[in-house]
Amino acid sequence: MENNKAMVIFQPSGRRGEVPKGINLIEASRLLGVDIETLCGEKKVCGKCKIRIEEGRFEKYGIESKKSHVSPWQELEDKFIKAQEKEAGYRLACASNVEGDILVFVPEESRAGKQLVSKAARDIHIEYNPAVKIYYVELIKPTFEEPTGDFERVCRGLEKEHNLSNLRIDIQTLRQLPMALRKGDWKVTVSVWMDQEIIRVQPGKNKNHYGLAIDVGTTTVVGYFCNLTTMEVVDTVSMMNPQCKYGEDVMSRITYHMANADGLKRMSDDIIEGLNWLIDQAIEGTYPPKKKKKKKKGENGPHEFVEVPEKGKTYLYLTREDIEDITLCGNTAMHHILLQLNPEHVGLSPFPPVIHHSLDIRARDLNIDINPSSYVFVLPNEAGFVGADNVGVLIAEEPYKKDETQLIIDIGTNGELVLGNKHKLISSSCATGPALEGAQLQFGMRAAPGAIERIEIDPETHEVDYKVIGRDAWRKYSEAKDMKAKGICGSGILDVFSELYRAGIIAKSGAFRDNQKSNRFRKNMETNQPEFVLAWAKESSIDKDIVITQKDVRQIQLAKGALYAGCKLMMRRMGIDKVDKLKIAGAFGTHVDREKALAMGLFPDCEIEKILSVGNAAGDGCRAALLNRDKRKEANWVSRNVEYIELTVEGDFQNQFIEAMQIPHMTDEFPHLEDIVPDEILHQK
Amino acid sequence: MENNKAMVIFQPSGRRGEVPKGINLIEASRLLGVDIETLCGEKKVCGKCKIRIEEGRFEKYGIESKKSHVSPWQELEDKFIKAQEKEAGYRLACASNVEGDILVFVPEESRAGKQLVSKAARDIHIEYNPAVKIYYVELIKPTFEEPTGDFERVCRGLEKEHNLSNLRIDIQTLRQLPMALRKGDWKVTVSVWMDQEIIRVQPGKNKNHYGLAIDVGTTTVVGYFCNLTTMEVVDTVSMMNPQCKYGEDVMSRITYHMANADGLKRMSDDIIEGLNWLIDQAIEGTYPPKKKKKKKKGENGPHEFVEVPEKGKTYLYLTREDIEDITLCGNTAMHHILLQLNPEHVGLSPFPPVIHHSLDIRARDLNIDINPSSYVFVLPNEAGFVGADNVGVLIAEEPYKKDETQLIIDIGTNGELVLGNKHKLISSSCATGPALEGAQLQFGMRAAPGAIERIEIDPETHEVDYKVIGRDAWRKYSEAKDMKAKGICGSGILDVFSELYRAGIIAKSGAFRDNQKSNRFRKNMETNQPEFVLAWAKESSIDKDIVITQKDVRQIQLAKGALYAGCKLMMRRMGIDKVDKLKIAGAFGTHVDREKALAMGLFPDCEIEKILSVGNAAGDGCRAALLNRDKRKEANWVSRNVEYIELTVEGDFQNQFIEAMQIPHMTDEFPHLEDIVPDEILHQK
Repeated sequence: MENNKAMVIFQPSGRRGEVPKGINLIEASRLLGVDIETLCGEKKVCGKCKIRIEEGRFEKYGIESKKSHVSPWQELEDKFIKAQEKEAGYRLACASNVEGDILVFVPEESRAGKQLVSKAARDIHIEYNPAVKIYYVELIKPTFEEPTGDFERVCRGLEKEHNLSNLRIDIQTLRQLPMALRKGDWKVTVSVWMDQEIIRVQPGKNKNHYGLAIDVGTTTVVGYFCNLTTMEVVDTVSMMNPQCKYGEDVMSRITYHMANADGLKRMSDDIIEGLNWLIDQAIEGTYPPKKKKKKKKGENGPHEFVEVPEKGKTYLYLTREDIEDITLCGNTAMHHILLQLNPEHVGLSPFPPVIHHSLDIRARDLNIDINPSSYVFVLPNEAGFVGADNVGVLIAEEPYKKDETQLIIDIGTNGELVLGNKHKLISSSCATGPALEGAQLQFGMRAAPGAIERIEIDPETHEVDYKVIGRDAWRKYSEAKDMKAKGICGSGILDVFSELYRAGIIAKSGAFRDNQKSNRFRKNMETNQPEFVLAWAKESSIDKDIVITQKDVRQIQLAKGALYAGCKLMMRRMGIDKVDKLKIAGAFGTHVDREKALAMGLFPDCEIEKILSVGNAAGDGCRAALLNRDKRKEANWVSRNVEYIELTVEGDFQNQFIEAMQIPHMTDEFPHLEDIVPDEILHQK
Repeated sequence: MENNKAMVIFQPSGRRGEVPKGINLIEASRLLGVDIETLCGEKKVCGKCKIRIEEGRFEKYGIESKKSHVSPWQELEDKFIKAQEKEAGYRLACASNVEGDILVFVPEESRAGKQLVSKAARDIHIEYNPAVKIYYVELIKPTFEEPTGDFERVCRGLEKEHNLSNLRIDIQTLRQLPMALRKGDWKVTVSVWMDQEIIRVQPGKNKNHYGLAIDVGTTTVVGYFCNLTTMEVVDTVSMMNPQCKYGEDVMSRITYHMANADGLKRMSDDIIEGLNWLIDQAIEGTYPPKKKKKKKKGENGPHEFVEVPEKGKTYLYLTREDIEDITLCGNTAMHHILLQLNPEHVGLSPFPPVIHHSLDIRARDLNIDINPSSYVFVLPNEAGFVGADNVGVLIAEEPYKKDETQLIIDIGTNGELVLGNKHKLISSSCATGPALEGAQLQFGMRAAPGAIERIEIDPETHEVDYKVIGRDAWRKYSEAKDMKAKGICGSGILDVFSELYRAGIIAKSGAFRDNQKSNRFRKNMETNQPEFVLAWAKESSIDKDIVITQKDVRQIQLAKGALYAGCKLMMRRMGIDKVDKLKIAGAFGTHVDREKALAMGLFPDCEIEKILSVGNAAGDGCRAALLNRDKRKEANWVSRNVEYIELTVEGDFQNQFIEAMQIPHMTDEFPHLEDIVPDEILHQK
């Protein structure tokens, strides 16, 4: 009987499994939980779902040849894939059917535009030297002649075979030791932290051990679940920061703490609970997915779930205890709140944090539920709000090792800037606010189903085409009722902003022009403010027109102004007027269209090919610290050797800021300052 | 108006307070919670309440002269106090009335025979070098020019003023840091553990800090509450080991663990709860005693307690957080059970412990409720059951620093023996069982009110005089109904045993003689066993004759046999037949009459003046480790450099043991082995 299933492996996520032969790779990706971009909903007309059939790595997976395993090339693919790309193995996923075992690489640009997925780990170079290492020892069991205690027996083995000495042991591990030794018949795998402390003993020989690098963002939390033996990213897990309910930005969370006696503990408990949930997700991913059992007729009980292992797929079947190390980063406020350190002084001049230095905290002391003796390594803070997350960016990008001068912009709810080279490094933060991430706008929303994440406005007709999260097909390929739009999320903001300008709907000053061509432009009757309709009520799930208002545009201008002015002032401090390289970190960076961003004056002038998106560099740095203990030292060194600049007190900041708010920063049609700059920014100390 | 009160200070306890002038020193001692021995109940006929009026230390306390402060010498005192003693300031407490401020020293032999009090700290020499030290720093508050974080600011101060570097900080202390700095206006007292880690920060300047050295005995737990700045013992607190309900001796506790899945946790929880209670006692002692408030008529609520500070008495008003360090010792089983380490392998050949080395465990990880960042130092174990308690004895007595060969016997529920000198040290344990401490006898009981603790038998009449705990007057000075005897406690055992022999009631073999002179000797109707009445039912509170049976005598013989044989075998191992010094540690040692003990064959032959009682040497060693961190290193060194000998496998043990069971070990009237040696000992592996 012929096998009607085939194994498909998607890289870089590593997700794999058997799928029915004959389905296309978009369908296969859905079955295996991989997100591939498709605008047209598999109509084969958008060309966004480019993937690469991997060759070189076939042997590794025991797959002989790709030739016969994918359906033949279709003519329509020529429209989207150049000859050179074709040669390299590129195909459209929607036009490629599975006919045998294959290995598929999904390039960054074809990964679906979900905010969280874009935080996937990049392939940065990391030397192997994790803080937690495992050692296998075979011991001789106690005899009357040699009745030495269990701990000393293990130590002797580790010293003899692995040259480790002066080890200590955590009490929780010590409690497990006698059983592990006897269950393993005196052959055990010992996990040692920093060559100093035994934190786990398992019976028998174990080759793999695991850790988690977690970037705690103000809005999004991402965890890289890594194999500490192979350095492989086993899974990427993410979630909203549950503290969002206390306020969107860092200042509102600090205010929440100051206004509520137990506010700090509550916010800390929430993020810890969140981290434990994230850990659960990582662990659950190592088991077969649970499938809903069909209800029998007349049955009233809750749905039952059963584990259904997929044939041919390897599951690791890990437990929480298998996570032996965690590294954490976040901005200073997130850092302080998570650790229950009073964050209020960070918010007040002269902004001293409670601590700069990194911390090794026993996981159980933070109520983080992993291997009980393990430590959580918390990256060090720089200064002000430029915290452990920026240190993560630094140790991932290593600008201090380069001759060239790099400007690294990490755009999150709080913008963090680093500028420098091997001679000098300066950092700063700028209050971009959450506008660039979609918050604070009238129809701003988080990256969730129904959020407009891409938009195009026809300069002639001012007609709008857009895409929402949760639906692959764009507006023009869809029925109005199928769009179910709800608002605009971060990744759509710059699109909206630049498209409005490109189509001539707004002027350089950011003001709506008067001579509008379509009925989408109107004055709101209540607010008397101009606004532009992005999606009509009939396309929405909220039965309202989704609009962008003049005030929204001003918010975006404030954010971009703060960012641009910050960059400029830092460059002036360094005595340069052009950077050699501009790196954009954060979720925003992976979505941003570099040309649009430059044209809009989001960043200082830079050759377009020198602008790089470095994805979640903070998370990458966190992962580097997980996999290489030397990176931890490096983190402490760099955190104390980057000069922090408080931008708001630079004499020229206000002028630079106001100037930078325009689109491409020139000086026609500039509005009155008071009209557009909120009081708290104008009178910022 | 003349002051009708006077200040009295008792040494070595340090208890002090104002008492009404005119009362005698026994009455004063009761008011201040000091126990002075008095057999006759202040009838001035027993001469047991000798105390010394201190001279040399008067100036220190601002008291000018003793002359006029105590009532004049009474003739009757000449009967009990020699001229030389009189010269040195000795008086009978019952014959000395308070007439002004005085300082009184209560010699060991006059302290009342409560088991727990006898575990008082001795005055051993300890160098000052505690693991936790306090440092005062004055810092400059953060400015815009110098906005360094709180932790780094403190570190810089500690480095500059106290030469401490590379400090880390516990997360719990870090959480307190911002408030402590600001509350203290940037002047703080920092507690540092081992010059490595900041474990407490208090606002302002603090001169004193505190710690607790705890000896966890199988039956009794004693804590020395010490001022870590002055090294003074502030208080001694004690309690029964709450694990006693799981079995009197170590083997029965191990058995309890093996028979009950949660037995180990239950026993551990109990002792931890006990330690927290002990800590409460220490803390409560720093507040004025609570006095019951008189109920108003018609009031039905619970009794109310109010704090009534005694005039002139200094109270420290400490909290649990003021305890910044704890050292712990106990035998290997107590050590393992407390730490929830599986103790079963310690009980099985080849008896490997889970760990020998000392441990530093965060107090909160043991649920011990003191300063949350503090560590508990657990002394290392030697081997078999010779655990951290014996290491305590060793570092207190330091036989490894002496030329002379010392034999140190620590008699608790488990006997631990050490023999050696600076060249060689051997140790062993012997299953004395709890008989010498009063358990396992038909009327054996713990040191509690009603327990017979001293006894004398008239060789002519076989009449018995005795004393019970809780009553100062002996039987012959009392009414029968006032004795309220209940049983015999540990301190009375050897008295009973040797008096029975001295009076000719038992033979050298331990068997009751036939030719008895009094009706106190009889055969029990039920058991057909001979027994001897120590106290008649009318003198008891249990309405029963309190007797010692033939089986009881056998139990004592077994204990003494094990002890004697153990000593002998160790001496043979060392190649000696006489020791230079014999030290008796443990509560038993402080009560034992050396001549009686030698005559009974409890110890190997030794000149009487070479036999010393060293009190609770284990506790003293524990206290040394609290006050001097070098003693911790020394403890680890000695624990690995004392050679452990398993006595029961020495070829000659059985013979030595059986021989040693006799009174003075000779060979007449020796009973059949099977009659007196229980199976488990005869067939011990």
